[in-house]
Amino acid sequence: MMLTSKSITKESIIDVEGIVSLVPQKIESCTQQDVELQIEQVFVISQAAPRLPLQIDDAARPDGDESQGPMVNQDTRLDNRILDLRTSTSQAIFRLEGGVVQLFRESLMKRDFVEVHTPKIISAASEGGANVFEVSYFKTSAYLAQSPQLYKQMAICSDFDRVFTIGAVFRAEDSNTHRHLTEFVGLDLEMAFNYHYHEALDVIGSMFNDIFRGLRDRYQTEIETVNKQYPAEPFKFLEPPLRLTYPEAVKTLRENGVEMGDEEDLTTPAEKLLGRLVKAKYDTDFFILDKFPMAVRPFYTMPDPNDPKQSNSYDIFMRGEEIMSGAQRIHDPKLLTERALHHEIDLTTIQSYIDSFKYGAAPHAGGGIGLERVTMLYLGLDNIRKVSLFPRDPKRLTP
Amino acid sequence: MMLTSKSITKESIIDVEGIVSLVPQKIESCTQQDVELQIEQVFVISQAAPRLPLQIDDAARPDGDESQGPMVNQDTRLDNRILDLRTSTSQAIFRLEGGVVQLFRESLMKRDFVEVHTPKIISAASEGGANVFEVSYFKTSAYLAQSPQLYKQMAICSDFDRVFTIGAVFRAEDSNTHRHLTEFVGLDLEMAFNYHYHEALDVIGSMFNDIFRGLRDRYQTEIETVNKQYPAEPFKFLEPPLRLTYPEAVKTLRENGVEMGDEEDLTTPAEKLLGRLVKAKYDTDFFILDKFPMAVRPFYTMPDPNDPKQSNSYDIFMRGEEIMSGAQRIHDPKLLTERALHHEIDLTTIQSYIDSFKYGAAPHAGGGIGLERVTMLYLGLDNIRKVSLFPRDPKRLTP
Repeated sequence: MMLTSKSITKESIIDVEGIVSLVPQKIESCTQQDVELQIEQVFVISQAAPRLPLQIDDAARPDGDESQGPMVNQDTRLDNRILDLRTSTSQAIFRLEGGVVQLFRESLMKRDFVEVHTPKIISAASEGGANVFEVSYFKTSAYLAQSPQLYKQMAICSDFDRVFTIGAVFRAEDSNTHRHLTEFVGLDLEMAFNYHYHEALDVIGSMFNDIFRGLRDRYQTEIETVNKQYPAEPFKFLEPPLRLTYPEAVKTLRENGVEMGDEEDLTTPAEKLLGRLVKAKYDTDFFILDKFPMAVRPFYTMPDPNDPKQSNSYDIFMRGEEIMSGAQRIHDPKLLTERALHHEIDLTTIQSYIDSFKYGAAPHAGGGIGLERVTMLYLGLDNIRKVSLFPRDPKRLTP
Repeated sequence: MMLTSKSITKESIIDVEGIVSLVPQKIESCTQQDVELQIEQVFVISQAAPRLPLQIDDAARPDGDESQGPMVNQDTRLDNRILDLRTSTSQAIFRLEGGVVQLFRESLMKRDFVEVHTPKIISAASEGGANVFEVSYFKTSAYLAQSPQLYKQMAICSDFDRVFTIGAVFRAEDSNTHRHLTEFVGLDLEMAFNYHYHEALDVIGSMFNDIFRGLRDRYQTEIETVNKQYPAEPFKFLEPPLRLTYPEAVKTLRENGVEMGDEEDLTTPAEKLLGRLVKAKYDTDFFILDKFPMAVRPFYTMPDPNDPKQSNSYDIFMRGEEIMSGAQRIHDPKLLTERALHHEIDLTTIQSYIDSFKYGAAPHAGGGIGLERVTMLYLGLDNIRKVSLFPRDPKRLTP
């Protein structure tokens, strides 16, 4: 029997018939330690090609540990994604990512959100037309939606009150970094509120804590599996989440040597530094940064009624990287028109957006999360391609 | 007070301050019959434009009931979708549609399926390249996926065993019918099986019954609300679901005057007739049609090992319309190549698909469901545009 089964190529799929029997001594090298299988027959269901483009053992070894065999570089992994996904690490990553989506939904459904689906093919490029993919659409052309935002807002204007949507979003940005994809999964939510946009920010904060608590409690095995190959500090969060204002962040950064103006945006290095400073002071990998300067936010962002230089908008960070951007949106067509003109946007391209608020629109706020970024940063991974099943970037369209 | 509030335009959003008081006599015309609100102050939060493009009352009236006021035609509804979505009917439809998605997930998650996300931008047009939208992708061009099938299958080849995915699928088909959209939500599943593809068909059948039972038990209010505007017979299903074979269906159709060959596909009128005949005989609006002739199925369909003219493939019907197509897929690269050549497919365009099965692939089967069709047919509605939040068809890209 052993002779025969040695001729079966690695990674083949086989059926085995045999007798399960107790062992006198625990088998330390297996997860199933108390029994063994006395094989009687082996059937080859699918014979793998004898030469594999990569060895699963090599793909599963911790980075830098070349004493045991060659490392597999990222492009080889992605070119042969089917094999790369067979490692315990990949299996754990995508099971946990499925958990993020499930926890996002659970948290919002218990808060009376309705799940909706928004179109990906849109007639006009939102937000000015930069970075959108063009699609040929019968005799005309169209674009791929960069965000479901407009449609979420229209759902609120349609009396849905609280909605979320999960789906592909597209960015035609030629960014070849560890954290950009041209196609990713957006977890988006939008809600009407009664008195203050912080009602939405409270929901968002609680939702993230539901996700973090759920991952910690339900996915401990997966987290440990990933950590064996890619060690990382456990993800820390506070209950309730830490919330800072933009002026507080600027003050902290200045105290630590960063030179920046009050109405300037955070650079990526400044974000990273802020993440480290916040971690040192508050012991959390998660925080909300509220009240961004009006000057650095999109035209539809609601100004702070008490200080027109500030806005009712926020970014959210995990391990010093932005994973969500959101705001109270302007629901008054007159103010929205004014702000668009201020941003020198061609009104004809956004007229239907403005018109959405003409027939009664409740004050509302929301935001969008990149699923892959949340998974990557929660697990402390170094590249977003590890958490996208078949990643798309400016240079990669296959497999 | 009443004078002032009369000047508030219809559909405006208002805040009301007042005192809740008991009423001496039930208010028959309201859902809240025992109390009333003594209004003290009204604040207009968002004033609607005085002229609405359609009246909600008109949009909410049953078809054909013009004695009470004008009807609103479909294009006017869709052009002003925000208002059309405010009817109780639309609110109920989309809440129930959210329920279909949730029940689909619940049913599969309890059967150990993993939720995954597959790319929508693909490098080569699957299935020969007809009916795909082309996308400009940096310096090259790409296509929008017509189905996540290839990627679901690759997930199975990556050892995920059972997967489902929910997301946009795109069809560049110039079909202007009551049941075609160019973009819709696909509910897709794929699973490895041990002995027979009927293991997958059993799961699919049970999953549909979970959905139908869940809708009946959790969404009775929504169903009744929709029925008030669009009356329909309650949706009937059997436990377990009825399963017929293609030869049985052909025999039944012939007995009822349809002339067709053994290896001919069902026409749309034949499908409708079959639906009526099955309903009359078995009292079910749902059935599975198994063992389609090999001649009418795509190249990747597994032939029946006992009869090469038949295939291990199936369609599923609701109220006489197809809502799911599925099959056991060929997992052997050699047989797959043979079948592709038989279908005169250019092998270079599908080489990576064929290669997916080279490194050990378990036998697997699956299928894809159109969410909107399920919702439409469950509710007995006459047009798929009623169940798509912002529908896309060859002539409609807005709002």
